[in-house]
Amino acid sequence: MDRGVRFLNACRRLPVDCTPVWIMRQAGRYLPEYRAVRARVGFFELCKTPDLVAEVTVQPVDRLGVDAAILFSDILVPLEGMGLPVVFDDAGPHLPEPVRTAADVARLAVPDPIEATGFVMEGIRRTRAALGGKVPLIGFAGAPFTLAAYAVEGGGTKSFSRIKGLLFSDPHTAHRLLERIGRTIGAYLAAQVEAGAEAIQVFDSWAGVLAPSDYAHFALPYTKQVIDAVPKGRVPIIVFGVETGSLLEQLAETGADVVGVDWRVPLDEARRRVGPAVAVQGNLDPCSLLAPPAEIERRVLDVLARAGDAPGHVFNLGHGILPETPVDHAVAMVEAVHRLSARPRAA
Amino acid sequence: MDRGVRFLNACRRLPVDCTPVWIMRQAGRYLPEYRAVRARVGFFELCKTPDLVAEVTVQPVDRLGVDAAILFSDILVPLEGMGLPVVFDDAGPHLPEPVRTAADVARLAVPDPIEATGFVMEGIRRTRAALGGKVPLIGFAGAPFTLAAYAVEGGGTKSFSRIKGLLFSDPHTAHRLLERIGRTIGAYLAAQVEAGAEAIQVFDSWAGVLAPSDYAHFALPYTKQVIDAVPKGRVPIIVFGVETGSLLEQLAETGADVVGVDWRVPLDEARRRVGPAVAVQGNLDPCSLLAPPAEIERRVLDVLARAGDAPGHVFNLGHGILPETPVDHAVAMVEAVHRLSARPRAA
Repeated sequence: MDRGVRFLNACRRLPVDCTPVWIMRQAGRYLPEYRAVRARVGFFELCKTPDLVAEVTVQPVDRLGVDAAILFSDILVPLEGMGLPVVFDDAGPHLPEPVRTAADVARLAVPDPIEATGFVMEGIRRTRAALGGKVPLIGFAGAPFTLAAYAVEGGGTKSFSRIKGLLFSDPHTAHRLLERIGRTIGAYLAAQVEAGAEAIQVFDSWAGVLAPSDYAHFALPYTKQVIDAVPKGRVPIIVFGVETGSLLEQLAETGADVVGVDWRVPLDEARRRVGPAVAVQGNLDPCSLLAPPAEIERRVLDVLARAGDAPGHVFNLGHGILPETPVDHAVAMVEAVHRLSARPRAA
Repeated sequence: MDRGVRFLNACRRLPVDCTPVWIMRQAGRYLPEYRAVRARVGFFELCKTPDLVAEVTVQPVDRLGVDAAILFSDILVPLEGMGLPVVFDDAGPHLPEPVRTAADVARLAVPDPIEATGFVMEGIRRTRAALGGKVPLIGFAGAPFTLAAYAVEGGGTKSFSRIKGLLFSDPHTAHRLLERIGRTIGAYLAAQVEAGAEAIQVFDSWAGVLAPSDYAHFALPYTKQVIDAVPKGRVPIIVFGVETGSLLEQLAETGADVVGVDWRVPLDEARRRVGPAVAVQGNLDPCSLLAPPAEIERRVLDVLARAGDAPGHVFNLGHGILPETPVDHAVAMVEAVHRLSARPRAA
């Protein structure tokens, strides 16, 4: 089977010759060739330079042998066009002008995605050209709740008390914020598909800080909104969050084709809970790649066994690859996934 | 019913006149009278001064009207006696000499709890005297996995890559570390009960970073070990962690009488999963207390409704109370729990 088809087939629950695999943050700091590029340009400058985006997006494809590329960018990129400057520095991203009041929300723009983030679309076109059809290119965006959490918190948080304080104390303003972000991200994803993204992953990275009833009110409708903005059936859509063990059934209701699962829920249980109408993606603990290759193989086999033989499994880590991961270990994982999942040819 | 009996009855799944309630970190920074004490003494000095421990432990009992007191201390306190100095500063606790090698593990002591932490036992005795039987006193300790994670990471971490790197790459050394911590904590808890603690909470705060199969290997046996060290049936034991949605069944197997549940799993589902042989504790999202009292009451009612009418529910937050919580809101929560759960007197 063509390496370019494996991932898209699995997303659509069609048969594959072996389980496709890619790695969240596969274009990232653990790769020396990525660090070499970053030694020359800052993180945000890299995101805004289409030729460099194409270069680092393609880097892991041959190095690791993965079955998909994911566009190098950041979920916070579209916030700038809404009027929210974002700063990336060593302490992580932060927003110097966070959203705190109804007036702050009222000031937010819903920008045209080409005007505000044309560099992303150009990055997609150049990456597609650089990939030459070898593997499909995944575009992505943050889900509205996660982006609203960044917008309101302004930076790192353990308690998420500012965003939840807003949700629980002033739901009217919270819904207006989520709706504006939802329109922005919906248009942004549609533009990515128009530019050539062959699949989409929606990162609701922080969904798991919400109780299921709060997720149902403040996150699910807006994740649906952005998924609905992508022309139906045009490209497979993956929805992913961490600590979503109590939310899997709701993630399966978003309209996504694939539910990404972190390492906390075994895939056999995850498949039972999301049902047969969606595929699953995951879910090796990223820290597994710090273990020796024999232990990595044992853990890969466990994930594959739990995923089972039914079509509809995309192998991935349960979260982004860690910067301290030895590249050889990532290669060993990809190789083990392909080898241990190889199906006999159809008669 | 005597306020002193409500909490212990609920832990043992016996009938109560209304649902008992206490709050994790109820003696803490949100209370002005606690901040007044802390303005005079450092955190660790406070932990080591029995009269002050008694003072701050008792502070919230009348102020909030809660049904139990929990000893003011920190889960890292017993690590010092093992040979691991702990520093508490504004950036949170850290260990300047973390455990990284088999030789580091071999050097760890299993101290006598009276010699190493006699100040804790004296704090328990003075707190019991200060409480005068009004409400029971809960003692506590960290579970071995969580303490091992602190010992190996040495400080804050998002990925837990050092502790998991050890578990996955050198399980032999990891088990030796866990076993030593387990013996230390088992003796520490038994000494607390001997000194007068009337219930015990085991905080496996970071259990939720482990996949269920890793929890089964590296955490569950050692949590059992420390619970087994407390004389059987003498005091109720609560086991608690966050992000434990995939671990509830295993938490119910630890031998604890009560499983604490964070806010991510609705209590009706939690009770179904832990079964009728254990009680549950929880599980209001701590951020709920930032909302207006009417919204707090609505959320309290939801937790009570999900907990149902069967005996065996201790109301609590799903994690520690946030420093920015208005005291009046905590009072409103306690009052709402008692009022909304009041049972008609038995005929």
